[in-house]
Amino acid sequence: MTIISTGIVTLTTDFGLQEPYVGIMKGVIVSACPPARIIDITHEIRPGQVGAAGFWLGRAWRWFPDGTVHVAVVDPGVGTDREIVAIESGGHYFLSPDNGLAAELLRHLDHATTRTVAPETFAAIGAAPASNTFHGRDLFAPLAAALASGRLSPERVGPEKETLTPSPFAMPEAQGPDLIGQILVADRYGNLISNLPAASLAGRDRPSITLLDHTLELSRTYADAAQGTLLALVNSMGYIEIAVSGGSAARALNSPPGTAIRLGSG
Amino acid sequence: MTIISTGIVTLTTDFGLQEPYVGIMKGVIVSACPPARIIDITHEIRPGQVGAAGFWLGRAWRWFPDGTVHVAVVDPGVGTDREIVAIESGGHYFLSPDNGLAAELLRHLDHATTRTVAPETFAAIGAAPASNTFHGRDLFAPLAAALASGRLSPERVGPEKETLTPSPFAMPEAQGPDLIGQILVADRYGNLISNLPAASLAGRDRPSITLLDHTLELSRTYADAAQGTLLALVNSMGYIEIAVSGGSAARALNSPPGTAIRLGSG
Amino acid sequence: MTIISTGIVTLTTDFGLQEPYVGIMKGVIVSACPPARIIDITHEIRPGQVGAAGFWLGRAWRWFPDGTVHVAVVDPGVGTDREIVAIESGGHYFLSPDNGLAAELLRHLDHATTRTVAPETFAAIGAAPASNTFHGRDLFAPLAAALASGRLSPERVGPEKETLTPSPFAMPEAQGPDLIGQILVADRYGNLISNLPAASLAGRDRPSITLLDHTLELSRTYADAAQGTLLALVNSMGYIEIAVSGGSAARALNSPPGTAIRLGSG
Repeated sequence: MTIISTGIVTLTTDFGLQEPYVGIMKGVIVSACPPARIIDITHEIRPGQVGAAGFWLGRAWRWFPDGTVHVAVVDPGVGTDREIVAIESGGHYFLSPDNGLAAELLRHLDHATTRTVAPETFAAIGAAPASNTFHGRDLFAPLAAALASGRLSPERVGPEKETLTPSPFAMPEAQGPDLIGQILVADRYGNLISNLPAASLAGRDRPSITLLDHTLELSRTYADAAQGTLLALVNSMGYIEIAVSGGSAARALNSPPGTAIRLGSG
Repeated sequence: MTIISTGIVTLTTDFGLQEPYVGIMKGVIVSACPPARIIDITHEIRPGQVGAAGFWLGRAWRWFPDGTVHVAVVDPGVGTDREIVAIESGGHYFLSPDNGLAAELLRHLDHATTRTVAPETFAAIGAAPASNTFHGRDLFAPLAAALASGRLSPERVGPEKETLTPSPFAMPEAQGPDLIGQILVADRYGNLISNLPAASLAGRDRPSITLLDHTLELSRTYADAAQGTLLALVNSMGYIEIAVSGGSAARALNSPPGTAIRLGSG
Repeated sequence: MTIISTGIVTLTTDFGLQEPYVGIMKGVIVSACPPARIIDITHEIRPGQVGAAGFWLGRAWRWFPDGTVHVAVVDPGVGTDREIVAIESGGHYFLSPDNGLAAELLRHLDHATTRTVAPETFAAIGAAPASNTFHGRDLFAPLAAALASGRLSPERVGPEKETLTPSPFAMPEAQGPDLIGQILVADRYGNLISNLPAASLAGRDRPSITLLDHTLELSRTYADAAQGTLLALVNSMGYIEIAVSGGSAARALNSPPGTAIRLGSG
């Protein structure tokens, strides 16, 4: 399938907004593809957290029009021989390092085709790694611009690739009738987002969610519980999360990413 | 009056930039209104601070062209039956929850018409609250896109509404010849911004401003006072603020939002 | 030389993203130049750090297309009689206060022409300092829009200017065969960026870099050293920096901006 590009490019990085790194990537993209329209997903992934980058982009991409090019760069191995991959799925196009980010992202895509970006492709579009430390600027931005402008056809980026570096995020595991997941990330409100998808509630009449020594029923909205009390709900991303009404679950509980969360039946 | 849309949409939220929430709203808007141009006012309103959101958007909107659609989502009651309102004023269009944000905003508008967004309107534009937690994506973004694209006429969003949930911010009160206001917000420089408008200086020959036990005359610029000393001035938003030359008044004084500030005559 | 404007405007400020200051500048620019495309370099320069603003814009501008208008506002003297300057170099156009920012920026430009923006120029484009505290909105944004739209010709902004307020950043100094530089800034990864350019390595067979009591050889990538160990490399901006593989050099070392760094031969 050939993408009809919309000229929309999204960016997901751990570059932060303090330094000009993100602005420079945008400069490279609009230099090579003047009509490009660049939309930030986030640049505040914690440095090196490839799983979080793949997860968030995985939850965000479907809200963009077909033909969007999504660039995700969290890349502690920049300059080493880790590969850069290009994934095509549902008319969207994704670029990222093969360091766990791509594998996490792939969990959120259907019918994806993954390709290694071949060295010849970078040469063909005039991109070369001028630095060993900023491939966002030197490789990813030119590649995104080439795809967004239609100059580079998605099928021609390189050979298909079967195996990816695995995601650092675990999948939920069955334990008898229960499902054991874990907290993946805390968002800015202090909501603790788990890897238990809404679909895992199917067939449970009265689901109960247990985190540390708190067992909770499912609420419908943040305002459903009394101010300051814990609640569990299916969030807007389609995952079970733990929140505090009018407060922060991350501050209320000692449950960093990786903490176990159990879905049972009450 | 019918708005001739410029396709410009501004966003004011408490979503922060860590997670993809803002990016997702932008994806929804450009999907439904491809020529839309989206400009961030801020996404760093403190979680749930509806007054600050209304105040800042109230000070910002007039710097945008007529026909701009302004979306403000600080919405701790998301998913409850709080209403969504649409306000038209001076050729600009505003969307927000009716939770105090809209009422604070209204103080900064002239000749405004406020309407409740009717459930049929959301149905007509194909928007439905897929989630109970992210109406920014599910309702506000589609509504903004429908207005910005001209598909939805401002007069047709719903019935006019007389009474709004009041703003959490107090208005200044006269006390004899003096006016008693309060600190509303501290900005990133540590400048303490009050609710005393420049207009309240009219008729005062030598105005004096008192915060805690400091009484100050009006300065003209931040550099007018010696480095490290307190000063009061009319800021660029048209309000009296307390600053420290080359420093932070928020750090120098213990005066959180709500602290009283007195305008007298020296 | 007359700039053929691309309509691209970049912004570099210390305004932060908490308040609507940046959004307001963008509103002013699109009001006066509707096709303008605004790209943020950064708004997280530490308040008042004019050197860092000039340095980062100096490293970023060449990644943008010819004809770009770059606005840099870090302006603790706003409202005083410090001048506003316009610099033309290599088909790019730069606007900033003459407070050290412009002089630092100039170090990163070739064949630049610097002009003082004349009061008549502001009058001619309808800009007047409505406030003494927000010239980003009242002067810089209208000026950028006038240049980006082609209404104002770069040669007509005002008279050429010979002398600028000096940069607060020192230049490296020779000490025998060695070169003594200093740490300029720490980035979000905790990488310590020095003022020693890659060019200073020329002619040194085995360069050695000394910061505090650590003497390091040059690495090629962040991943070249063992996790948690210090390394030195030429970064993507073309300067020598000190990093910790998988960690933060800023946290590992007590070496704030200004700390000496020595380049010798091992």
